[in-house]
Amino acid sequence: MRTFSASRADVTIGREHTLTEQTVILRLGHRIPRDLRVTTHVCLTARAFGADGLILADVVDTALEKTILDVCERFGGNFWIRMGEPWRHVVKEWKSKGGEIVHLTAYGIPLPEAMGTIRASPNPKLVVVGAEKVPGEVFEAAIWNVAVTNQPISEVSALALFLDRYFEGKQFSLEFENAKLRIIPSAHGKKVVNLSERDN
Amino acid sequence: MRTFSASRADVTIGREHTLTEQTVILRLGHRIPRDLRVTTHVCLTARAFGADGLILADVVDTALEKTILDVCERFGGNFWIRMGEPWRHVVKEWKSKGGEIVHLTAYGIPLPEAMGTIRASPNPKLVVVGAEKVPGEVFEAAIWNVAVTNQPISEVSALALFLDRYFEGKQFSLEFENAKLRIIPSAHGKKVVNLSERDN
Repeated sequence: MRTFSASRADVTIGREHTLTEQTVILRLGHRIPRDLRVTTHVCLTARAFGADGLILADVVDTALEKTILDVCERFGGNFWIRMGEPWRHVVKEWKSKGGEIVHLTAYGIPLPEAMGTIRASPNPKLVVVGAEKVPGEVFEAAIWNVAVTNQPISEVSALALFLDRYFEGKQFSLEFENAKLRIIPSAHGKKVVNLSERDN
Repeated sequence: MRTFSASRADVTIGREHTLTEQTVILRLGHRIPRDLRVTTHVCLTARAFGADGLILADVVDTALEKTILDVCERFGGNFWIRMGEPWRHVVKEWKSKGGEIVHLTAYGIPLPEAMGTIRASPNPKLVVVGAEKVPGEVFEAAIWNVAVTNQPISEVSALALFLDRYFEGKQFSLEFENAKLRIIPSAHGKKVVNLSERDN
């Protein structure tokens, strides 16, 4: 049993997805196994807030993939995850196809200032979130370096706020196709409907 | 050198802080060392988005404390962290002093529906965020069980969205007193001013 794989830069999973997606997250600097939980939170936030998919740069983490695919299987939707491509390739390909790059960093321009021009551009967005240090090249490659506060926070909360503003709160009305489980909002307690049982 | 401590339920740090604070986070289910990084992200998000402090229930994690106090020392503000109190005591004390409890959970009422009544009440709020399973008692103790989407996400992004809506985006204009470092927003690159050097 592999609980996590060694780093491999030559493996790509789910490669059929390209720039037809509009909003994709690029996760940089993921270390195995140290970042498994935080990157899982990045993926789940990306999915629930309406991003199309996530590219994990440079490494393949099968434990991460298993967790995310399991959530997608149970809770539905078309969120995908791709792994192992060198980040420079991803960035280059994205730009060559007319996509634009947003980098979330505490050093950037405040989100409320940047959001107007980001939303005004109809081109697909690659939203880069790093773990710890991010190469200077990323700051240069990004059209927008965007700060969700100029304080140390978390790439998870930065991504949540970015997607909330970018999609204007659509996370509260998203429907996920082919879900097996659906949570029914409840004032006190847990209500979950098993849709796969209902259909049988 | 202790990089992290064993669990101790009888130690409290920074106990001078009580209900005079208006918005405090209660972190449940933290496991040492597994949750160090995610709880760090919870703390940093709480601080940057305007919460007064965080109570880590049941355990003392000195590695976490060191990280958070180091950020507070460098970036300023009055955010505090308290550790080791049994969560039932914290909840009981909070309620006995007229405070109210909000529990962030995917099973709850959608944030946009709940926020009106939460903001209408002037009483201090204890915002509970769990790691994985949360006891049923918490669902009962909370006046509001609130869902930031009814999807699996992350306590980090749930807290960010909750505080964003509760404080109406004040994270983008907060000033942190006595900061030694201040990040200057920049379109490309990193600009940091060392305020402690400037004063000398």
